[in-house]
Amino acid sequence: MEDRILREGRVLSGNILKVGSFLNQQMDIELFEKMADEFWRLFGDCGVTKILTIEASGIGIACITGQRFKCPVVFAKKNRSSNVSGDVFSSRVHSYTHNKDYDIIVPKEYLNTSDRVLIIDDFLANGTALNGLIGIVRASGACIVGAGIAIEKAFQPGGDMIRKQGIRVESLARIKSMSESDGIEFC
Amino acid sequence: MEDRILREGRVLSGNILKVGSFLNQQMDIELFEKMADEFWRLFGDCGVTKILTIEASGIGIACITGQRFKCPVVFAKKNRSSNVSGDVFSSRVHSYTHNKDYDIIVPKEYLNTSDRVLIIDDFLANGTALNGLIGIVRASGACIVGAGIAIEKAFQPGGDMIRKQGIRVESLARIKSMSESDGIEFC
Repeated sequence: MEDRILREGRVLSGNILKVGSFLNQQMDIELFEKMADEFWRLFGDCGVTKILTIEASGIGIACITGQRFKCPVVFAKKNRSSNVSGDVFSSRVHSYTHNKDYDIIVPKEYLNTSDRVLIIDDFLANGTALNGLIGIVRASGACIVGAGIAIEKAFQPGGDMIRKQGIRVESLARIKSMSESDGIEFC
Repeated sequence: MEDRILREGRVLSGNILKVGSFLNQQMDIELFEKMADEFWRLFGDCGVTKILTIEASGIGIACITGQRFKCPVVFAKKNRSSNVSGDVFSSRVHSYTHNKDYDIIVPKEYLNTSDRVLIIDDFLANGTALNGLIGIVRASGACIVGAGIAIEKAFQPGGDMIRKQGIRVESLARIKSMSESDGIEFC
């Protein structure tokens, strides 16, 4: 993952790392299989019954990981309208990219108290999306096994904030610093 | 696929078939593997170099299919803002569900004239999204091998319209009619 980031990732202004060529718009499924193997190595003995992610760019990684774990994959939808019905678990998320709040929702029938949930996502930066997913799992009464992340921007506060809640977060690549001039440095 | 629709699908008013429990919000990856096998049987000898889908619910099926075809998967994003930059292929799509137009976009770097593209999506009804994807492939100069669809509402005009353009459309389940009172009948 680190090699691939160095080879194809592009650092843009505003702390944006562009990895669309293999991770989150064009998806390299062979790479996803290797990522799933690593998530299995890390969480394979945790009795995971369900994988939870968020649309859109987490879905591909989550599906290949779900195949490895032989369990269903659920994704939270981003709800742009204001009305949330009673049949869903929801969580309010602030988007720093778009500077506005939105709700993420999962129908109640897809998570229950006997589930052991592994959360999968492509990026962890400020942790707002991940925090929202954690809120949804908590509301459902299911157990959170942990979170498997492709790329963590370790210089942003999300990872620390989530780990301080006692949640296990495993990131395949952790970026210590990045800039347009000096490139990318890993932890 | 037909069995699963009969067992878990729910017909709602307004020609809506709800299959979120296995297809497009909670995703049954084992079912996706069987679907990918069938798409491989149908299109495996077509020299597919890339799979194209549209966010969000097509991504899971497309990724498992891409794994079978050993090729990258690209998804078109739905662009809610009005400005489309020059670096993308775009196509205007009308949503009957939300009764408004939006653009779907794919960065130009992910499709080129030497690509042979298989389009994958979960639903085909009025054909507007599929037509938009076809427009994007045509704009790129790539060859369209065909479209693999999970569920076609054959009583709506999309399938006929696309096939009349000479494009091969293969649907795993084709619904002839459905209603809240009489249930679902396949072609």
